[in-house]
Amino acid sequence: MTIISSKDNPVFKETEKLIKSSKMRKKTGLFTAEGFRIVNDAVLSGCKIKNFIFSESACDKYNEFFSQCRNKGEKMYVFSDSLYSKISDTFTPQGMLACISRLDKNCLFDKIKLGGKYIALENIQDPGNMGTVFRTAEALGIDGIVLSKDCCDVYSPKVVRGTMGAVFRMPFSVVDDLGDFISGNRQLDSYAAVVTPDCEKAGSVKFSPNCITVIGNEGNGLTESTISACGRKITIPMGGRAESLNASVAAGILIWEMMRE
Amino acid sequence: MTIISSKDNPVFKETEKLIKSSKMRKKTGLFTAEGFRIVNDAVLSGCKIKNFIFSESACDKYNEFFSQCRNKGEKMYVFSDSLYSKISDTFTPQGMLACISRLDKNCLFDKIKLGGKYIALENIQDPGNMGTVFRTAEALGIDGIVLSKDCCDVYSPKVVRGTMGAVFRMPFSVVDDLGDFISGNRQLDSYAAVVTPDCEKAGSVKFSPNCITVIGNEGNGLTESTISACGRKITIPMGGRAESLNASVAAGILIWEMMRE
Repeated sequence: MTIISSKDNPVFKETEKLIKSSKMRKKTGLFTAEGFRIVNDAVLSGCKIKNFIFSESACDKYNEFFSQCRNKGEKMYVFSDSLYSKISDTFTPQGMLACISRLDKNCLFDKIKLGGKYIALENIQDPGNMGTVFRTAEALGIDGIVLSKDCCDVYSPKVVRGTMGAVFRMPFSVVDDLGDFISGNRQLDSYAAVVTPDCEKAGSVKFSPNCITVIGNEGNGLTESTISACGRKITIPMGGRAESLNASVAAGILIWEMMRE
Repeated sequence: MTIISSKDNPVFKETEKLIKSSKMRKKTGLFTAEGFRIVNDAVLSGCKIKNFIFSESACDKYNEFFSQCRNKGEKMYVFSDSLYSKISDTFTPQGMLACISRLDKNCLFDKIKLGGKYIALENIQDPGNMGTVFRTAEALGIDGIVLSKDCCDVYSPKVVRGTMGAVFRMPFSVVDDLGDFISGNRQLDSYAAVVTPDCEKAGSVKFSPNCITVIGNEGNGLTESTISACGRKITIPMGGRAESLNASVAAGILIWEMMRE
């Protein structure tokens, strides 16, 4: 196979843009995932892969996977180690990357009509937090995730990595207005997660089988309009000088409580 | 006040080493905290501050705090903005940093003899995870944290920042051998957090008022010897293709369960 070593190569240029630019990911309908484990996970989860990129060293190291892809007729490119290192997002690159078609998850809305337990995120800015919420939601059995459009890009490399593959499998949807979405889905009991103590306490709430809990921005919490749209308010009681929990830990505890039998 | 602008200045050189080197932090018994909120938190929490460092711009921006420190006769240095940016650990530096004496928390062992609820961390490597566990532990009311000596350095800038100040207030202790520590504290019910399903499930365990839960390394979990030292094993039931939770989320859920009434 030809080894690509030039920064002018169109595949290199496209991949670099996909990694760096949320706008490019939107425009092309593609995103990237890096590392053997997560690329393999994308394949096993049935994602549509546009192409695979291997570094020269990775062709040897992941020889079996490489041959498998080749035998299946997948579109594959090999970059010189030095060129590969220019697009790698990690300190110790494994030398494997896939460009993947964005996942059409609009089916979520139909699912919600059937009911279930959901998490919504409003204006979450830290990619690590968002990735961790996806990972927790999948592990504990949440039915789907709703994201406000001002959250960070769910297809950014850091989010994708943090989900540990959950992004490939978890139904999710980005909505224009979270308040409207909640008001429009009255079959779901809705809970706004807040830090004010004058509301229902996590631990004494029994969640119904059809419900949604909304988690807000790391620094500012939920907007007033989203809180008003929710039927109920819930808080995690805190003591000491601590003013708040990390958003992904708060989400973890609330998901745990939602799924409690 | 003299504005320091040279990289050869001894205060600059010492601070730079404290930020970068765990060995230097051990040797000098000092560590650093950066940013107005956390530095102020260190002061309010009664930490012994060796010196404050302000950038030129921060002297204006945090004028009140600056004058307060000066009036109290604190040791203070002003760095030119360009010099300050060389030691800042953050993308948008607030221009304020303190060198703080390490916190002697050996009192923890006496406290444990009196009982309470504790968390132990074994070989946690991600500073973000460790910081988040401190933050969660304080918010939910844990009595103290025990760290195995192979954990990442609790005084590293990333951990300190992630604790949101909890590191200044939460009793903690680093122990040579976690298994020995647990075996030596039989008055505490000890729980090893594991991912194997053949053990007690979080959610159905009622924790006693004197207990300790041990969380393991992000990739490999707990060592066999630590698991053996613990009286009981506990797991967070998971479904789907997810193999594990993020360590700080797992700790969050277990702390939540420990503190549940």
